[in-house]
Amino acid sequence: MHAQLRPKIAALAALGHELYNKDFLLTWEASEPTLRAILLTAEILEDLARAGVSTRTFRSGLGVAVFRDKSTRTRYSFRAACNLLGLATEELDESTSQVSHGETVRETSAMVGFLSEVIGIRDDMFLGEGHKYMTEVSASLDESHKAGILLQRPAVINLQSDLDHPTQALADLRHLVQHFGGVEALRGRKLVMSWAYSPSYGKPLSVPQGVIGLMTRFGMDVVLAHPPGYELVDDCLTVARRFSSETGGSFSTTDSMDAAFEAADVVYPKSWAPMAVMHERTRMIRAGERAGLADLERQALAQNARFKHWECTDALMRRTRGGRALYMHCLPADVTDVSCPAGEVSQAVFESARLETYREASYKPFIIASMILNTRFPGATATLTHILDDGRPRRGHAG
Amino acid sequence: MHAQLRPKIAALAALGHELYNKDFLLTWEASEPTLRAILLTAEILEDLARAGVSTRTFRSGLGVAVFRDKSTRTRYSFRAACNLLGLATEELDESTSQVSHGETVRETSAMVGFLSEVIGIRDDMFLGEGHKYMTEVSASLDESHKAGILLQRPAVINLQSDLDHPTQALADLRHLVQHFGGVEALRGRKLVMSWAYSPSYGKPLSVPQGVIGLMTRFGMDVVLAHPPGYELVDDCLTVARRFSSETGGSFSTTDSMDAAFEAADVVYPKSWAPMAVMHERTRMIRAGERAGLADLERQALAQNARFKHWECTDALMRRTRGGRALYMHCLPADVTDVSCPAGEVSQAVFESARLETYREASYKPFIIASMILNTRFPGATATLTHILDDGRPRRGHAG
Amino acid sequence: MHAQLRPKIAALAALGHELYNKDFLLTWEASEPTLRAILLTAEILEDLARAGVSTRTFRSGLGVAVFRDKSTRTRYSFRAACNLLGLATEELDESTSQVSHGETVRETSAMVGFLSEVIGIRDDMFLGEGHKYMTEVSASLDESHKAGILLQRPAVINLQSDLDHPTQALADLRHLVQHFGGVEALRGRKLVMSWAYSPSYGKPLSVPQGVIGLMTRFGMDVVLAHPPGYELVDDCLTVARRFSSETGGSFSTTDSMDAAFEAADVVYPKSWAPMAVMHERTRMIRAGERAGLADLERQALAQNARFKHWECTDALMRRTRGGRALYMHCLPADVTDVSCPAGEVSQAVFESARLETYREASYKPFIIASMILNTRFPGATATLTHILDDGRPRRGHAG
Repeated sequence: MHAQLRPKIAALAALGHELYNKDFLLTWEASEPTLRAILLTAEILEDLARAGVSTRTFRSGLGVAVFRDKSTRTRYSFRAACNLLGLATEELDESTSQVSHGETVRETSAMVGFLSEVIGIRDDMFLGEGHKYMTEVSASLDESHKAGILLQRPAVINLQSDLDHPTQALADLRHLVQHFGGVEALRGRKLVMSWAYSPSYGKPLSVPQGVIGLMTRFGMDVVLAHPPGYELVDDCLTVARRFSSETGGSFSTTDSMDAAFEAADVVYPKSWAPMAVMHERTRMIRAGERAGLADLERQALAQNARFKHWECTDALMRRTRGGRALYMHCLPADVTDVSCPAGEVSQAVFESARLETYREASYKPFIIASMILNTRFPGATATLTHILDDGRPRRGHAG
Repeated sequence: MHAQLRPKIAALAALGHELYNKDFLLTWEASEPTLRAILLTAEILEDLARAGVSTRTFRSGLGVAVFRDKSTRTRYSFRAACNLLGLATEELDESTSQVSHGETVRETSAMVGFLSEVIGIRDDMFLGEGHKYMTEVSASLDESHKAGILLQRPAVINLQSDLDHPTQALADLRHLVQHFGGVEALRGRKLVMSWAYSPSYGKPLSVPQGVIGLMTRFGMDVVLAHPPGYELVDDCLTVARRFSSETGGSFSTTDSMDAAFEAADVVYPKSWAPMAVMHERTRMIRAGERAGLADLERQALAQNARFKHWECTDALMRRTRGGRALYMHCLPADVTDVSCPAGEVSQAVFESARLETYREASYKPFIIASMILNTRFPGATATLTHILDDGRPRRGHAG
Repeated sequence: MHAQLRPKIAALAALGHELYNKDFLLTWEASEPTLRAILLTAEILEDLARAGVSTRTFRSGLGVAVFRDKSTRTRYSFRAACNLLGLATEELDESTSQVSHGETVRETSAMVGFLSEVIGIRDDMFLGEGHKYMTEVSASLDESHKAGILLQRPAVINLQSDLDHPTQALADLRHLVQHFGGVEALRGRKLVMSWAYSPSYGKPLSVPQGVIGLMTRFGMDVVLAHPPGYELVDDCLTVARRFSSETGGSFSTTDSMDAAFEAADVVYPKSWAPMAVMHERTRMIRAGERAGLADLERQALAQNARFKHWECTDALMRRTRGGRALYMHCLPADVTDVSCPAGEVSQAVFESARLETYREASYKPFIIASMILNTRFPGATATLTHILDDGRPRRGHAG
């Protein structure tokens, strides 16, 4: 193990990054070396865990998880990441219906920040709100830290906002890198981020936005496919266009799932809500118009139903490169005849890709742990070297 | 302490067990030496804890608790057991009304398995479902582990299913062993597992099934007493009969609480639901027949009410051997005039046995910790010897 | 750091305290040296944490939090305190509507006590009940411990009862000591604990009671101001009178907020419920009179509304000593035009004091940790010296 890990740690040192004492809210705010450092740190942490080496880095300290939307998977990933590094976790469940700002945010941020190393936030349900909330928390933590009230300024990590889902997108990227054999091997590969039909309502836009905003940075040919009305936030499209032109890849949009799948190396068929509906939903919740929300849901489901044929089927998969594109999903998928009568993907396609989607998800705890390590230490390299030299077993008498 | 513990650890080494890298779902699937190893490991862990020695064995790692029924006691026991060994816990609360299978189980099992050492499951409310669910989780973990997705295959521990309640039954057994002075001292003792009246509905069958399936393995004379209609699952009766004939004990059933208590050494009067009602309940929930459930509850309570005289009273206790049988209960008991107007046990009987029922419960965290240790390590002996040699205090500066 | 801390630890040793193996339920039951020891231990723990030194004292062990009322802040403070010392936490959420006693309390106390070091309880909603509940838990733990069932007798710590809120009052005291430059500097300072208007109902009396019961012990001139009908529990007033006469300070009450603020050094304007309403509320809940509760709430809100002018405004603050009294609040405050149309404090006053109220709150985790350390060890001095000598970093590879 040592023989394999030393060069990786050396490569990490060479990369450098700018995360120390920062937050991680949007991948498009991070430099490319920083993104590579997160990926590589995650890989090293996983190597160490697989080798049974303890990566406990904190003797005490808290990771606070603020969830404004329920999530078994994200909760577990965050807790697993914290535990891997020695942090205990504390959860703060806020009502989904609440869009709180101002004094409440400032106060709560201080109250849960006293002894915390990291605050992970999931706030993805209200378009125009999630990212704003996170930046408010950041500013509040800065204020309390500068006043000497907080012992340390905890890092804020975006566990999914209305704009980006960086822990998912980076886990997806790590999956691509493992699948194709390196970051360089992604260059020129065609990745299709496609809308797909789902009988459910209100799915956030942050996964597709996160994917197009990140995969365009490594020279991939990224195609965004969706029916009319399912546009993504303008700023995210701008970001994707800029990155693709900078890295020699491409970014295009289409309203045909069929055309998009043609010769694709990777397909990511996934439902999301119509942007207009999401904006209206935020407005209604803020205005307290509860009655209107049921109507809005009906309207959104009816709109979705016009595009039931946007399903990832065997026929579609055969159009991809060699008929063998890598199928990706952030889970849980709406699988036709399994979780619903008609969904994002046929049972046959999903079943053949199922274990690979679990593998894709398995990278997330390490991505989060990597973000914690890189935001809390000036260089993860020294810490990782120390861990490797020490080589204490994760299991076995721990004293 | 060392002088007492070395021989116990040596005895443990001599016993051996077959739990390494296995699950623990049913006591009747475990060999007798394995059961003795669990008991002895639990005893050693308790000795160490009482002597103030740290038994932390994991530097990091998660114990996941999946609860499909609310339980303060089981939650605490599981958390205490994990903490004793250095594991953090994460809870997964699933709705009681949900009987999920297939894809959802496979996916969730993988998602909470990435960095977990143990997954404890309580799923006791749906006859015909709980054990099935646990075996589905096991199979899913196998699949994800074989595919290299899980770093390690977590052990699944049954914290109460529809068939067995092994952590309770083994804590009960440990209580008996302490009370009578050794496993051998149980031979020939008469234990009565008796139904008792309760004004509540839907109590699982797993406690009486667990008791008759385990206590028949050590040469006890086990009597199962219940009114007609309160039969236990056939397979469990078969298991009890087989074990009693193999170990030279006996197993019989009766519909008279009075007759059963005659010359008993141990009595375990406890309510459970009519089996037919539990089957119908599972069917209705699966079929979504919410309306029928209220009727079913009324019917079950009416059926119970016909047997209000099945109460453990002073008069009944006087029939036991020397009038001093050991009273057992898994708690909470329905105590007449305390928690309800008429219940399983009279206030006088319960009050005189109350502290002993707390003692009975006190063994459970150590039984669970013993299961974790024995399923995660090829031999708990080496780990326990290391702990004893090291002798680090549980309290005092921990660095 | 060492140079500053050695004298503090020496001073702590000189103080002594009587907390070892005791509970902490009411500040007025603790001796003055004990209170000073809690303050000083909290200060040392904070110094160590700020210096990045690990104060982990337990290798395993649980802190159980029993909440009979929701609280983000108290939950976090308790968890942070436990984590600072190496304890994991487990929560026991009991329904707010439940006033359980007797067997349930005895049993639950034993069940969550097996491997616990501390049990923190918040039960502030039912006047005449909270403190009683805590003493019942204490008695139950004693009983189970004496019977050898509990390995150790966990300390019970009051996280807010109907009578006192000692972790808040001691954090407040620590804030005063830091603000004025020492315990001695409090002598002769005028502190006003004043009722203030709030549009909410059922706020407990324990904060004002805790403040007058504690601040009268250090020679302060304590004034309690409230409209008629908002009296505090008699015993608490008696305690405040006794302490003020013993320590050479004073204690008086007034029904004029204006008069009270005159030349005040410290003001603590905060709403609480009319005592008669709180008593009636407890009676109704115990009697199951759900319908009456809504009426009672309307009546209480109407009563409050008669005193809307009890608001801490700029005009009032100008009456204080030099117009610059220290504004205190336990948070969250009802701020006029921020959290409600009319509340306890004007936006301008609160905003200028906001960060100081965060600082006031920041002491609470350390006060709780101090209570744990002092109740669990015969002398915190030895432990703190060991921690200082060892000097292990809180962050950095932890093995």
